[in-house]
Amino acid sequence: MSHHVSTSHNEGMSFTAHIDNHTVIMDSHDDPIQQKGPSPKRLMLASLAGCTGIDIVSILDKMKVRYSDFTIDITATLTTEHPKIYNHVTIIYKIKLEEVKDQAKMEKAIQLSQDKYCGVSAMFKAFAKVETKTEYL
Amino acid sequence: MSHHVSTSHNEGMSFTAHIDNHTVIMDSHDDPIQQKGPSPKRLMLASLAGCTGIDIVSILDKMKVRYSDFTIDITATLTTEHPKIYNHVTIIYKIKLEEVKDQAKMEKAIQLSQDKYCGVSAMFKAFAKVETKTEYL
Repeated sequence: MSHHVSTSHNEGMSFTAHIDNHTVIMDSHDDPIQQKGPSPKRLMLASLAGCTGIDIVSILDKMKVRYSDFTIDITATLTTEHPKIYNHVTIIYKIKLEEVKDQAKMEKAIQLSQDKYCGVSAMFKAFAKVETKTEYL
Repeated sequence: MSHHVSTSHNEGMSFTAHIDNHTVIMDSHDDPIQQKGPSPKRLMLASLAGCTGIDIVSILDKMKVRYSDFTIDITATLTTEHPKIYNHVTIIYKIKLEEVKDQAKMEKAIQLSQDKYCGVSAMFKAFAKVETKTEYL
């Protein structure tokens, strides 16, 4: 199986990626007001959050766990020399569970995502230390 | 230096990433019509294209090379077992140069991006074989 993405140059440092029926604009303008989209590197962190997030909701749904206000905050430090890569990533899962007793199920869901299902996490672990934390709202 | 991205669950398998002042929607719905955004994993390929693309335009501009119709096509194969990761990535740079003699400068720009500047390429090379090709339009 393979994935295909076509990305075209707009103007300046702005590019549009065509992913299936969707488009994502990226940009690297110094001025945040004029920047037309996120920087490509930060987009990798969105990819990581989305990948593990989709695992978690899929597993919690199967476990009949009821929740709300689920967010994933990622902070990643960069190396100082070119090429600058992420070398330490912290993923904080924040969630409001209807039942406190479901915390063990949430921890199990995170573990399954990190150790088994999330391909993006597995790829990150090839170049960075990945830590996870959970905050129950 | 560190980057921060916050990603919130919408409904179903849909998430919204907040990256600086920008938002990117991701989704994993089986039905392409109902899917609200790209899959997180494919977003990594956009990230790779954007990163190396920004390097190339930045270098070509410094070299005073005139060009148009610059696109970056990426095809990536996935492993078959969970967690599914990209193990082979082909980046095809397509560009129309005003002067045929600038092809050497384009090749130099690609080499500088791949070997020195593009952090996303460097991260991909930790888990995948990355090949590049160039097509002059």
